[in-house]
Amino acid sequence: MKTVLTYGTFDLFHVGHVNLLRRLKGLGDRLIVGVSTDEFNREKGKQCLIPYEQRREIVSAIRYVDEVIPESSWEQKVSDIRAYGVAVFAMGEDWQGRFDFLRAECEVIYLRRTEGVSSTEIRVLLKSFDEEKVRQIKEALDLIANVARDLS
Amino acid sequence: MKTVLTYGTFDLFHVGHVNLLRRLKGLGDRLIVGVSTDEFNREKGKQCLIPYEQRREIVSAIRYVDEVIPESSWEQKVSDIRAYGVAVFAMGEDWQGRFDFLRAECEVIYLRRTEGVSSTEIRVLLKSFDEEKVRQIKEALDLIANVARDLS
Repeated sequence: MKTVLTYGTFDLFHVGHVNLLRRLKGLGDRLIVGVSTDEFNREKGKQCLIPYEQRREIVSAIRYVDEVIPESSWEQKVSDIRAYGVAVFAMGEDWQGRFDFLRAECEVIYLRRTEGVSSTEIRVLLKSFDEEKVRQIKEALDLIANVARDLS
Repeated sequence: MKTVLTYGTFDLFHVGHVNLLRRLKGLGDRLIVGVSTDEFNREKGKQCLIPYEQRREIVSAIRYVDEVIPESSWEQKVSDIRAYGVAVFAMGEDWQGRFDFLRAECEVIYLRRTEGVSSTEIRVLLKSFDEEKVRQIKEALDLIANVARDLS
């Protein structure tokens, strides 16, 4: 059995995530996804809108995903590869070259983002927003901001 | 084999949708989800942020979902129930009573939203937004509005 490992945040889940997970699963038989914890994101200076527990639950519900593990440090990759018997470590090409040092442990693949996963994806999404929609989102966010203040 | 049928929009996919789909699947052996088309939403005066093709693809990727069909009219429910041999028609309790007329065709269940699917869910999400996050979202939306104007 060929095990594939990847890591990601998966904030505000969208169709680009689905495409990426489907292609990752296609690289082997079992797909393990490390989802970054809120603490690790804070450490990286990255803010998420959706809390870890919810991001984990959504990724776990995707049919291409066999197991979800927390990603809580930069150092865990080698130990995860060994612990889970990983054959393929795969990330999007925006990480090109960054994980070549893992070639001592397993195959390392950088996936091309050919299926509308990044900029194309965003352009498609943007084109679906007219000014009326944007106005509605802003109104909703104003409401959220007010309610968030009331709750805190 | 007991077939369950539901309908929904599934805009901006979140953990509440995952919980709902898991519980729906638990009502039988096969879950069919009717995802509302953009045209049908316009007809209902409802605007979606995410286009139908993407909403369909995300719902299809959820492991609890066996089949996705388009929902394009109010009238299709009876014909879908007959065509797919549906045993259970199930919706959230916000639709309580609205589909009792389908009891002539199959079992009709309104699911209680006990698992953080609606208001509780939103409160949890809101609590995770501090004012800094809300400010960041607004900046991002301003950017989107500008880019959307440039693209159109």
